[in-house]
Amino acid sequence: MPLRVVEVHQSILRKNATLAQDLRERFQRNGTYVINLLSSPGAGKTTLLEETLRRLGRRYRVAALVGDQATDRDAERLRRSGAPVEQIVTGAECRLDAQMITAALRGFAAADAELLAIENVGNLICPAEYDLGEDLRVVVFSTTEGEDKPLKYPLAFATAHVVVVSKTDLSGAAGFDRQTAKANIERIHPGIEIVELSALRGDGMDEWIEFLDRHIASKRVLV
Amino acid sequence: MPLRVVEVHQSILRKNATLAQDLRERFQRNGTYVINLLSSPGAGKTTLLEETLRRLGRRYRVAALVGDQATDRDAERLRRSGAPVEQIVTGAECRLDAQMITAALRGFAAADAELLAIENVGNLICPAEYDLGEDLRVVVFSTTEGEDKPLKYPLAFATAHVVVVSKTDLSGAAGFDRQTAKANIERIHPGIEIVELSALRGDGMDEWIEFLDRHIASKRVLV
Repeated sequence: MPLRVVEVHQSILRKNATLAQDLRERFQRNGTYVINLLSSPGAGKTTLLEETLRRLGRRYRVAALVGDQATDRDAERLRRSGAPVEQIVTGAECRLDAQMITAALRGFAAADAELLAIENVGNLICPAEYDLGEDLRVVVFSTTEGEDKPLKYPLAFATAHVVVVSKTDLSGAAGFDRQTAKANIERIHPGIEIVELSALRGDGMDEWIEFLDRHIASKRVLV
Repeated sequence: MPLRVVEVHQSILRKNATLAQDLRERFQRNGTYVINLLSSPGAGKTTLLEETLRRLGRRYRVAALVGDQATDRDAERLRRSGAPVEQIVTGAECRLDAQMITAALRGFAAADAELLAIENVGNLICPAEYDLGEDLRVVVFSTTEGEDKPLKYPLAFATAHVVVVSKTDLSGAAGFDRQTAKANIERIHPGIEIVELSALRGDGMDEWIEFLDRHIASKRVLV
């Protein structure tokens, strides 16, 4: 990369870190638990999030922000869960950043929710560099994508707090090798928790909801 | 985007356009037909390319360049086709650009191949903005990703010359709605050619190879 580009990029990331810290303090004050979902296009983030908001919406005031390069289809889908949802159209940008989150929360009636889920742009590279002030970074990775994705997109897996292996209902048809995938995840991020599920069929969803519930509860004790 | 960032981005794209034009003239002089493959992570680019190189390698001198954020796994896989392959590790970059291609061709023994296939970084956003001097831009989109991808990543589909719908062997299990997917492609890029295939099972591969063969032949007549 030419020096000027590197400098601009670093200055963007520095500015993002400052804004993300402001967001984190604000979420802390409001008692908002924030999750940031990263994945490839089509890994099943929206289906997972719709069901997650529906289930956790019975216990918490939930809300969602969703980033997309174009269209508000995901926001429409997420609204079926009953949660308030705000769409962020990112245009040419390949990720959400802390500034976009700050702007989206302005005037968003559900900005003080107890659980705020952020669905990032479908991309395993760019979003990994941008802290959004989240408590939990989730990387979702479907059984149809191949076992090598953790090795090929290491930053996303290295910075995540939990890996969701999605679309387990398709693992047989896709010839997904679960042990190799787990070994690849372990190589990039030793000891990281892995949740396997099919949001469509419901397999593993109870474990996922319990996992989130435990993390939300432990933050609420601290507040 | 802040103005300084927009300016730097535009200057990068202008510089890329100049380098891409140099590449295009060079490929034209050498009689090299160039394809640039774009897709999400795990859409099946490498499997498709491995089989494409194997088949077209019987008729043409073929070679490949492959971009990846980390690892040279795809290059290793592509080499099984018998074609000379050069890996480009992009690090934090989410796409290949014309400068990376120019650098990779330097000292690459197969730089004057008759067919040069470039496998871009797995990403549907960033690579769409960067011309690599290619003759044919191919967007690969798997049946497991969902029918809405053309609407969500419009630039990739709008700038492509052909859409490959891959992993048709999984379309039943994934509940893929072929007509909706085609309507979405048509909405973003009216009239674009669509090839449906399963590189794993071989369905549709003859049509794909004939399609490429026709395009390569028509360029060779012009040279």
